Amino acid sequence: MRVAGLISGTSLDGIDVAIIDLESSISPVAWATVPYPEEVRKQILSVTNAVAHVGTVARLNVLIGELFAQALIDTCARFKVSLGSIDLIGSHGQTIFHEGMPKLFNGFLVASSVQIGEANIIAERTGIPVVSDFRQGDLAAGGQGAPLVPLLDFCLFRDKKRTRIALNLGGIANITVIPPDSRMEDVAAFDTGPSNMVLDALAQQISLPYDANGDEAREGAIDHALLRQLLSDPYFELPGPKSAGREQYGKEYVARFSQLSTRDALATATELTVCTVAGAIKRYPGDKDIIAAGGGVHNTYMMERLEMALGQPVRKTTEWGIPVDAKEAIAFAYLAALNVQQRASNVSAATGARKGVVLGKLTNPFAKS
Amino acid sequence: MRVAGLISGTSLDGIDVAIIDLESSISPVAWATVPYPEEVRKQILSVTNAVAHVGTVARLNVLIGELFAQALIDTCARFKVSLGSIDLIGSHGQTIFHEGMPKLFNGFLVASSVQIGEANIIAERTGIPVVSDFRQGDLAAGGQGAPLVPLLDFCLFRDKKRTRIALNLGGIANITVIPPDSRMEDVAAFDTGPSNMVLDALAQQISLPYDANGDEAREGAIDHALLRQLLSDPYFELPGPKSAGREQYGKEYVARFSQLSTRDALATATELTVCTVAGAIKRYPGDKDIIAAGGGVHNTYMMERLEMALGQPVRKTTEWGIPVDAKEAIAFAYLAALNVQQRASNVSAATGARKGVVLGKLTNPFAKS
Repeated sequence: MRVAGLISGTSLDGIDVAIIDLESSISPVAWATVPYPEEVRKQILSVTNAVAHVGTVARLNVLIGELFAQALIDTCARFKVSLGSIDLIGSHGQTIFHEGMPKLFNGFLVASSVQIGEANIIAERTGIPVVSDFRQGDLAAGGQGAPLVPLLDFCLFRDKKRTRIALNLGGIANITVIPPDSRMEDVAAFDTGPSNMVLDALAQQISLPYDANGDEAREGAIDHALLRQLLSDPYFELPGPKSAGREQYGKEYVARFSQLSTRDALATATELTVCTVAGAIKRYPGDKDIIAAGGGVHNTYMMERLEMALGQPVRKTTEWGIPVDAKEAIAFAYLAALNVQQRASNVSAATGARKGVVLGKLTNPFAKS
Repeated sequence: MRVAGLISGTSLDGIDVAIIDLESSISPVAWATVPYPEEVRKQILSVTNAVAHVGTVARLNVLIGELFAQALIDTCARFKVSLGSIDLIGSHGQTIFHEGMPKLFNGFLVASSVQIGEANIIAERTGIPVVSDFRQGDLAAGGQGAPLVPLLDFCLFRDKKRTRIALNLGGIANITVIPPDSRMEDVAAFDTGPSNMVLDALAQQISLPYDANGDEAREGAIDHALLRQLLSDPYFELPGPKSAGREQYGKEYVARFSQLSTRDALATATELTVCTVAGAIKRYPGDKDIIAAGGGVHNTYMMERLEMALGQPVRKTTEWGIPVDAKEAIAFAYLAALNVQQRASNVSAATGARKGVVLGKLTNPFAKS
């Protein structure tokens, strides 16, 4: 079974595409990140956690579907993979709202999440069935709808003897903790705090799309007073399950660095990520392997600081055949396959759901002949 | 196979529930309309074709899912149908935006539609798989995403010798034209123009929820000058496929009656529906049976005027075992069954789609044991 995974993260860099063959290794046959047109990126930002005409969101839902389909078609062409060889697509879509903690609304406790990128458009343009809308099932079962990657972490990294910590350095940083010889119920996973979302916003103040390799941060000085203040946020001490969103680390949060030069701000924000990630990991006793993925892995300064803070090397998912920029897309390809096999795929200990559920909705518009 | 259909129309009266057994007659085992709480009705109106926070829409999506689930559970209890006897749910949801005609948007021709009422909530609360989001597949294939009921009309009413016209008098009026001994490709269907949407808005000016039996309209006088003006709208002369929405016959449209007393306005608006429906039907030559459903069938004044204008009796779907208020809910139960059978269910000649597609997304969160 050949499955494609599609996702665009909150950083809005673009659409991550990965194509995997489930029979063999989960290492992708092809993968790429296809950037969003700048105009689309702006439009997504304008409706994310914001007030907008419902028609604008409806049109964007279709447009993102078109772009997701095109991203897969282009990736297939580039890597000479036949589109017709793909059996299934798992499309996470683009999150524009997420509220994992339920709130009272008209007498009901309501938790909600919105991912756009119309599955019917993707199916129609590619000729391939699509599984989408993965978060709703977990939310309906009382979970926070995130994180959903821990199942893949569990399947890939579980070890008989060693604790494995899968670290993702995306817009937000999160970890999956897999005890030795564990079952799925033993796995913990949660967001540790901000990562590239804040770093990118700071880099953009000096007209860089992001701080490549952490070169700017390396030249800056950590402001320890501000760092202490930021670290006093009770979120960091909360036990999991817990999830953080764009709301939490948006403009207001970035404004807290405004007294510093951009380099110093970057150094301080990097240290915040390092301290919160290391702090979360150190709470788990004993020897462990730390296996990192996500765009932050390319930030060599952050990786050095992190190894220093942890007192041990940080390995990369590439050792397991998983490109650091493709893990999430691979995860949603994998979750799509589990949907058609009718297998539960949320990790209750990670999301807080009452039970395991089969995640996603299946769009298969192709009639039997 | 026992299937439940759930829909709430643009009139926002409430949630129509119908439960059918596909093996026997399609006549429902149970059906009911469960009113929305007034507060929810207002909230839906406030986000319909309007500007709103994306979080409000996200929460309403979950809330409507809860209310749809509860409506089915309550209907089962009331009619002593075991929830566990239902194999599948087809949920149309609540439309809050519909733009069937494509518009250029970031270089793509985009047509879109939004139905809220989270399928995962309905599945989780009832324990039953759900098919939802029926309009996207047709839109993705170049159709207008509406009307989708013609397939049921075709299956129910097709006759070897006579033309059958299925008339629906809902918020909008629409007809399905089924020539004698026809195939699905021969079926035409389109919205003829406004119906209860305008009548209800006018009745609400004198604090009635709607003009029961058309009693108020019957006491009014038709303003022929205004009627001629309204009938000059080129929409009425357009050939199908064509669809009309809440945008078209909303507040501005109702304001065109403001010079008249409410009774005269109701009489004139009733005559507008009668003329546009009869005009559309008369374009099809030869003998025909006219088979009506929808809330407007209860408007005895409108039915009398319609029979007069057509010069023939208007029959009701009840003769075929279909309660006039349950036809749409039955249609979405039927479409859900076709989804799991992987059978195409849009009528291309009605929606304008390039091809037949299997409508809907399947939400089945229940793992194989």
